[in-house]
Amino acid sequence: MSIKAFVFDAYGTLFDVHSVKEKLEEQYPLKGEAISEAWRSRQVHYFMVRQLIHNYASFEEVTSWALQDALQVNGVTYNEEQVEQFMSVYEHLHPFEEVKDVLHQLQDHQLVVFTNGTQALSRPLLKNNGLDDMLRLLTADEQGIYKPDPMAYDYALKELGVEKEEVLFMSSNPWDITGAKSFGFQTAWIRRGKGEFPKLGFVPDYIYEDLTGILAFK
Amino acid sequence: MSIKAFVFDAYGTLFDVHSVKEKLEEQYPLKGEAISEAWRSRQVHYFMVRQLIHNYASFEEVTSWALQDALQVNGVTYNEEQVEQFMSVYEHLHPFEEVKDVLHQLQDHQLVVFTNGTQALSRPLLKNNGLDDMLRLLTADEQGIYKPDPMAYDYALKELGVEKEEVLFMSSNPWDITGAKSFGFQTAWIRRGKGEFPKLGFVPDYIYEDLTGILAFK
Repeated sequence: MSIKAFVFDAYGTLFDVHSVKEKLEEQYPLKGEAISEAWRSRQVHYFMVRQLIHNYASFEEVTSWALQDALQVNGVTYNEEQVEQFMSVYEHLHPFEEVKDVLHQLQDHQLVVFTNGTQALSRPLLKNNGLDDMLRLLTADEQGIYKPDPMAYDYALKELGVEKEEVLFMSSNPWDITGAKSFGFQTAWIRRGKGEFPKLGFVPDYIYEDLTGILAFK
Repeated sequence: MSIKAFVFDAYGTLFDVHSVKEKLEEQYPLKGEAISEAWRSRQVHYFMVRQLIHNYASFEEVTSWALQDALQVNGVTYNEEQVEQFMSVYEHLHPFEEVKDVLHQLQDHQLVVFTNGTQALSRPLLKNNGLDDMLRLLTADEQGIYKPDPMAYDYALKELGVEKEEVLFMSSNPWDITGAKSFGFQTAWIRRGKGEFPKLGFVPDYIYEDLTGILAFK
């Protein structure tokens, strides 16, 4: 089966959400990692809850709430300015090491980022990393929903103009792989140092340590 | 506004899901608490993912998956028999200290458990704790869905035969309170020692340390 569209999740897959750690560490010594971990896990939990109750709140809103709660549960004080400062880091996350080279090698194919982030947040992130010319940006936000709702993947599919099975979807997030696989995409779980794929009733078609694995489909 | 139905979440609200800790601790010294925490957080995450992808898996299935993954990430080995043994603890969870007395004091009212668990799992739990005569049991499973999907609360409402605003819904789980509040129930968050209510865009109508607080509505 030939792949006609390579579709990448953004946060945790192309970009390291924990590149914010150093910034947090500067202001909250010894707590940067814990805050960063709590921020990310709450962010995912919060947008899932808002999707489950069918009451959309934007990724920016949810991310800011999650940040404030992550700071609070870690027992540190913060002001509005600091929240804005940490939030702005989201536009300057670093791509993982191999990302640019892999995208370059695949540039004859349809390359797409499909993210739960908004255009307003993700467009500058691509631009700041010099990736905006290589990647088309699609956001579930344009439909007022979040992955892993099947309607999100369906929206992406319609934009791609190919068959489900011709899409290779990459994510480091098991909930995202589960949604994409359940929807009918071919899926590659990018492990990024994580352990086993959780028991969710679906398994990825492919598992790679990082994105270099997908060069097999070049 | 008078309350015509008192509706309780089961796991974490009436029953302590961490009463399984001792059982785990016996077999995995010093790891009981970590396994129990990982089990519960994964259980919630897993049923949320299955609800989000609109592909129902039963509470038993999801709970068993979460247990196995919680054991695995904590680096311990297990066999099928042990999984069954730990799972059976779910029928013997302990109610929190004040539960029986509070239910007794409210016995002239409509008292209902509304849970994400199945009848098969929750019925014996009530019976084993001598609560089956005091509480009517409703499960979202009967509709093939999970709270906090609004359809779950709507199903409960129809069974109760009262108005939305006449329901006082109790849960220790913020995602559950968020769903119930967004749906239109009156809500009491039972803190059970937790910190602040997370920023999810909704706040509970009432916050109590434990269930004795709701005796104000007697």
